[in-house]
Amino acid sequence: MGGGGGGAAWRTLGKKWLHSTRALTHTRIPPNSLLSLDLPDVWIPNTNYTSTANTNCRFIPSSRIHDVKSGIAWEICRMKNAIGKLPGLAVLLVGKRRDSQTFIRIKIKACNEVGIASFIAELPEDCTEDEIINVISSYNENPSVHGIIVQLPLPQHLDQEKIVNAVSLEKDVDGFHPTNIGNLAMRGREPLFIPCAPMVCIELLLRSGVEIIGKKAAVIGRSQIAGLPTSLLLQRHNATVSTVHAFTKNPEQITSQADIVVTDVGVPNMVRGHWLKQGAVVVDMGTNLVKDPSCRQGYRVTGDVCFEEAIGVASAITPVPGGVGPVTISMLLSNTLDSAKRAYRFT
Amino acid sequence: MGGGGGGAAWRTLGKKWLHSTRALTHTRIPPNSLLSLDLPDVWIPNTNYTSTANTNCRFIPSSRIHDVKSGIAWEICRMKNAIGKLPGLAVLLVGKRRDSQTFIRIKIKACNEVGIASFIAELPEDCTEDEIINVISSYNENPSVHGIIVQLPLPQHLDQEKIVNAVSLEKDVDGFHPTNIGNLAMRGREPLFIPCAPMVCIELLLRSGVEIIGKKAAVIGRSQIAGLPTSLLLQRHNATVSTVHAFTKNPEQITSQADIVVTDVGVPNMVRGHWLKQGAVVVDMGTNLVKDPSCRQGYRVTGDVCFEEAIGVASAITPVPGGVGPVTISMLLSNTLDSAKRAYRFT
Repeated sequence: MGGGGGGAAWRTLGKKWLHSTRALTHTRIPPNSLLSLDLPDVWIPNTNYTSTANTNCRFIPSSRIHDVKSGIAWEICRMKNAIGKLPGLAVLLVGKRRDSQTFIRIKIKACNEVGIASFIAELPEDCTEDEIINVISSYNENPSVHGIIVQLPLPQHLDQEKIVNAVSLEKDVDGFHPTNIGNLAMRGREPLFIPCAPMVCIELLLRSGVEIIGKKAAVIGRSQIAGLPTSLLLQRHNATVSTVHAFTKNPEQITSQADIVVTDVGVPNMVRGHWLKQGAVVVDMGTNLVKDPSCRQGYRVTGDVCFEEAIGVASAITPVPGGVGPVTISMLLSNTLDSAKRAYRFT
Repeated sequence: MGGGGGGAAWRTLGKKWLHSTRALTHTRIPPNSLLSLDLPDVWIPNTNYTSTANTNCRFIPSSRIHDVKSGIAWEICRMKNAIGKLPGLAVLLVGKRRDSQTFIRIKIKACNEVGIASFIAELPEDCTEDEIINVISSYNENPSVHGIIVQLPLPQHLDQEKIVNAVSLEKDVDGFHPTNIGNLAMRGREPLFIPCAPMVCIELLLRSGVEIIGKKAAVIGRSQIAGLPTSLLLQRHNATVSTVHAFTKNPEQITSQADIVVTDVGVPNMVRGHWLKQGAVVVDMGTNLVKDPSCRQGYRVTGDVCFEEAIGVASAITPVPGGVGPVTISMLLSNTLDSAKRAYRFT
């Protein structure tokens, strides 16, 4: 059942891991062994749920921050009038993945809407790491480019970490650079960029009047683009954060005590009604495609939360679609604008 | 009462904070506002506790990893014989704080014991940031120096973050650099150095046969040198981690569900017996001086955990003194040796 049901897979891996760590009887353990084996998070989807009705649960739609884009457009206009400069965003696509092409099209369109200059580099599926890094280096040095995105995932023969690391810290508008993540984790420090999905999560909570300080928050999932930085950001807001992952036993026991539940799992309907405390606020970051012949495209988009059950328990929830997703790109534009302002010392 | 009792202080701050965030009605919130105000963690100590007896609780003493130092000495000897080089550790002291002078003396003595060359720079209390950074830069460039420590705290007129940041990532043997912390947080990545106290915590658990994977862990406190990196490291070991801090309401409710409790608070006896689950494993990172006229020095060293109560509940506990503290410096030596091995490409 849910994360707990991922047990079979991780237990096998876990035993191997324990065996390996217990076997460490030499006098000096190299630091790397202290990091564990980074076992994969394997979640088992849930397909059996019931529907309930509730009129008390309010929706937190993306429209709660619909004004972000117009604010960005206005700022860019002001910048252009004052110093004659525009922010620039460069996007790098390797290969011909259709979903990646679609995401890039959406990003370029969003840039056009607010007045950000866009640059796009398309490289063939079989290109080398050096070729990609050369392109990134040229964007790093290009003063008209203030943000660089490497569209993920990359083809398997490429070292994703090495390539993402090549993006200069000052242009890492996705906020995935370890220095950014470190600065996000460390109170008293400020990352240059906050990753986009976590930024949306906090914005939606704050703009919906949800108190974060002192609240119990459970973040389900710990991906580097969403779950991990959201945990860190909620903690910077002085929530008491518990991070639930595929190795968590009885995840529903932890989530059902939380005032705020954030999901970043990628498994439709994993979070059931009984996983939630009465009156909890739920932010669903999942975007999952579920086959549905009744839909024109043959599938429908759904979140990680079993929406029909959750609205019977939660006090507020972000819907999928229409919640976190649509404004995530706005945050990317916002980060690009901030980067340009820093580069031009424009306030 | 304990962390919960810190309520009065943080509630006042909290209200101001909420007021400020709720007032954000403009169209674009600058990213920094998303980070909250980094309110100080204020804990209220507990002075009223009762003593119980238990014979089932075993101690996890630092001697569990007593062999680390001899392992380091052996490796350094092997390095010297093979390439004629020694690791070097540079320590920077600003001002005349007696406790800092003591800590530095202990570190230098430990270096001498294992064969690490030590360098010490003492600067006057009223020196400038530039003077300190010049010293750090010279150590950064010195190929005989593989680790640099800035002894904290620095005098108040100095920008601690700026100074600590000046230490080259490759020589940051304390592991406090944000890039190190980011790499520690991000699964699949490896920091160059793991901070010393968290490394001891994990080592003590592993060497005592305590399973971490899948276990619930509560880390009380979130300092950058201990609590924060310990939370990240436990999560890298696939524990389900909840971070408790001064803004946590009813911290004992969370800690009493945890299989592993780690404390990093700096408040004697804060963690009471009823904060713990029967059979929990407790790692006490606190080192607090409590006035005690019956002791020769006029004070005694105590941890964050009410030891007398905890041994009636826990299955294992690190004592204070004699637990985490004594081997923390060994980890610093280990990091310095690793750094030298990397620099000389010695394996």
